[in-house]
Amino acid sequence: MDKLIHNGTLVVMDDAFTILTSGAVAIQDGIIRKVWSPRPGEPLPEADAVVDAGGGLIMPGLVNAHIHLPMSLFRGMADDLSLDQWLNEHIFPAEAAHISPRNVGIGARLSLAEMLLSGTTTCCDGYFLESFVAPAAKESGIRAVLGQGVIDFPAPGVPHPGENIAHAAAFVKDWQAQTSNIQPSIFCHSPYTCSDSTLRKAKATATELGVLFQIHVAETAVEADQCRQKNGCSPVQHLHRLGILDEHSLLIHAIWVDAEDIDIIAHTGAGVVHCPESNMKLASGIAPVPVFIRAGIACGLGTDGCASNNDLSLFGEMRTAALLHKVGQMDPTALDAATTLKMATTEGARALGMAHTIGSLEVGKQADIILVDVDTPHMVPLYHPASHLVYAASGSDVRHVFIGGRWVVRNGILQTMDLDSILSEARALGRVIAGPS
Amino acid sequence: MDKLIHNGTLVVMDDAFTILTSGAVAIQDGIIRKVWSPRPGEPLPEADAVVDAGGGLIMPGLVNAHIHLPMSLFRGMADDLSLDQWLNEHIFPAEAAHISPRNVGIGARLSLAEMLLSGTTTCCDGYFLESFVAPAAKESGIRAVLGQGVIDFPAPGVPHPGENIAHAAAFVKDWQAQTSNIQPSIFCHSPYTCSDSTLRKAKATATELGVLFQIHVAETAVEADQCRQKNGCSPVQHLHRLGILDEHSLLIHAIWVDAEDIDIIAHTGAGVVHCPESNMKLASGIAPVPVFIRAGIACGLGTDGCASNNDLSLFGEMRTAALLHKVGQMDPTALDAATTLKMATTEGARALGMAHTIGSLEVGKQADIILVDVDTPHMVPLYHPASHLVYAASGSDVRHVFIGGRWVVRNGILQTMDLDSILSEARALGRVIAGPS
Repeated sequence: MDKLIHNGTLVVMDDAFTILTSGAVAIQDGIIRKVWSPRPGEPLPEADAVVDAGGGLIMPGLVNAHIHLPMSLFRGMADDLSLDQWLNEHIFPAEAAHISPRNVGIGARLSLAEMLLSGTTTCCDGYFLESFVAPAAKESGIRAVLGQGVIDFPAPGVPHPGENIAHAAAFVKDWQAQTSNIQPSIFCHSPYTCSDSTLRKAKATATELGVLFQIHVAETAVEADQCRQKNGCSPVQHLHRLGILDEHSLLIHAIWVDAEDIDIIAHTGAGVVHCPESNMKLASGIAPVPVFIRAGIACGLGTDGCASNNDLSLFGEMRTAALLHKVGQMDPTALDAATTLKMATTEGARALGMAHTIGSLEVGKQADIILVDVDTPHMVPLYHPASHLVYAASGSDVRHVFIGGRWVVRNGILQTMDLDSILSEARALGRVIAGPS
Repeated sequence: MDKLIHNGTLVVMDDAFTILTSGAVAIQDGIIRKVWSPRPGEPLPEADAVVDAGGGLIMPGLVNAHIHLPMSLFRGMADDLSLDQWLNEHIFPAEAAHISPRNVGIGARLSLAEMLLSGTTTCCDGYFLESFVAPAAKESGIRAVLGQGVIDFPAPGVPHPGENIAHAAAFVKDWQAQTSNIQPSIFCHSPYTCSDSTLRKAKATATELGVLFQIHVAETAVEADQCRQKNGCSPVQHLHRLGILDEHSLLIHAIWVDAEDIDIIAHTGAGVVHCPESNMKLASGIAPVPVFIRAGIACGLGTDGCASNNDLSLFGEMRTAALLHKVGQMDPTALDAATTLKMATTEGARALGMAHTIGSLEVGKQADIILVDVDTPHMVPLYHPASHLVYAASGSDVRHVFIGGRWVVRNGILQTMDLDSILSEARALGRVIAGPS
């Protein structure tokens, strides 16, 4: 074997929600080959690297199913504002002034470092200038779905909106031509910023190229109202009538949805991404996540861009999700710890169309594995691992991260990128963005 | 000077919300003596210990205004249950079986370690067997208000409810007789578990002894309904009619309150503690915090006991509070970062009657100071310190903690207690509580 991880509690994330105390995982060629509880005294298989989990938790890496990687540059630049003020007076002007090929790389590396250090092993991004984001993602070692943005306005890297789909297609083909940890994708910004024709063509292109189609939808009440006025139906129904919902479509936010919308999502097999912290921070509303789950919809968890969160830890996001739906429904059983943990692992993988390769510690899957320390006051005593992972752990408890068997974070230290230079570059750029004080 | 802290950004938490980049604080005899921005090249005053903040944030220690210290023993023991099931099938039986003089000390030390390491320098506790909690708090160095529980049922340490007030009074007198970091208090569990006579006598005793009177109130809709049926008024109005609301009364939760209740709280000067994570986890509801603040009510922030949270970091609690009220009111301006930071510092201090001694970095106040690291991806770039402290920081970013000038956490290492033995003892007790598996 290449690597052996042992002496920890395995949170397998299989259908039976198996927990193996004193478990072990053996890895070869980046793939999980064996998952078991060694008997006391049982000789362990030989491996090039043996990792002692020190009694900690061993679990699948987390899946951040929605992010805008470069937006960490705008972390905390503007908060506590109406969506309109936030976007029009702060985010859009900052993007117009500062989003460049060089700067998306700086922001992406910052986000990637934060995510890897906090246990995220797969992310699904949507932004512009993705051909400059992709090298950063490749270098970091993360497993990434990168969606090139499509919007019917001039955008960074695509000054002529008429070229937006061709531009996205070129990005997809470029990254499909090479073997890497990157899966290209097409990301339509929303039904209100893309014409029906753009939406149809973008989806047709994604289908033709065999990649994921992503879209923000039903994020605000205003969007839903305007769609009803313009199209006579809800945003989800509008997308459905355009014929662009299927199991390779990812619906981001999906807050303002009714029973018919939920039926449509369930029957078409489209995935959903829930972004609770962003939805709370922008006062967008509360997505009916427990209903999605009961309907069998693949519902993953995302941080959204850092500017509306303002961190990228999925541990915090899990806790927020589990707490939010309890008070949202006035029912403490509305979203339990195990279900929340699935959203951040297996269900996120399913929503991205990657359920067969990642999301659980099962033989044959990619060795995307994280080790979570439990030698801290906030993780003691330990009765139920799922409870601690959702309600008590934080990103800083992640000790080791493996992606496809590659040791990406070792003892809390990022192995694939130079953190000091990432922080220096981002700080320097932050001073430029802030302007003269 | 005894200590000098310099080379960081000072978040002063004064009325003007002053931020001093490249600030310094000088401490003598446990008191803040000077707070300023040294000019470049200005010689710094001599001090026995000089602490370089390394460009991080220097701010007042956080105030956890409501906790049940020993309940960390039950962290994650039972989650995602109705309040009734959770209390009656899990928490009450576990308390009956395991709350002893020895065990409250073990749980308290665990909670205290977690709080100190995550930047809490003052806590307000309410539980039973407080005479066995107090030595742990004293040893830890935390500034603590410790409320001996009063309830009209047999309780740990008070098998005969008729003796509950005498027992609390004895605890108060005992700790008033010594000089320490402990302020004793009386904690009535709630209006529905204490008779009117008990409530009146407990308040009279607290007043006579000059200590804080704490009580859970209006936590659930059921409680509010039952109070209306029994007393013909809301729980807050009931307490007011009993004459027990004044500026030395602390109302915990205060979720199910109406406009008249809020008027009463404002006019009597009683303080409020908001516990958002616990209120969400138990699906109790959303307290009208922005209304409290507009009414001038001192509204602090608390984690509540660990069994309904499940961690004790006030950084997470701040983020949850700021996000919850935005979505709760569908208004992204409902509770901003600076106001949330005040809840965890100056307003918490005010609710506890300690506004003159703690809560801000002002000359003459106790040197309760924490240093927060910003050399991590999730704290870069840094545009507005308050934003990062509320929306991005976590307890693990706390590097140094001083309480009354005493260096309690140094480079992330607890100085006053032996963390390894705290964790071992709590783990061993956790195995007993879990029972045979």
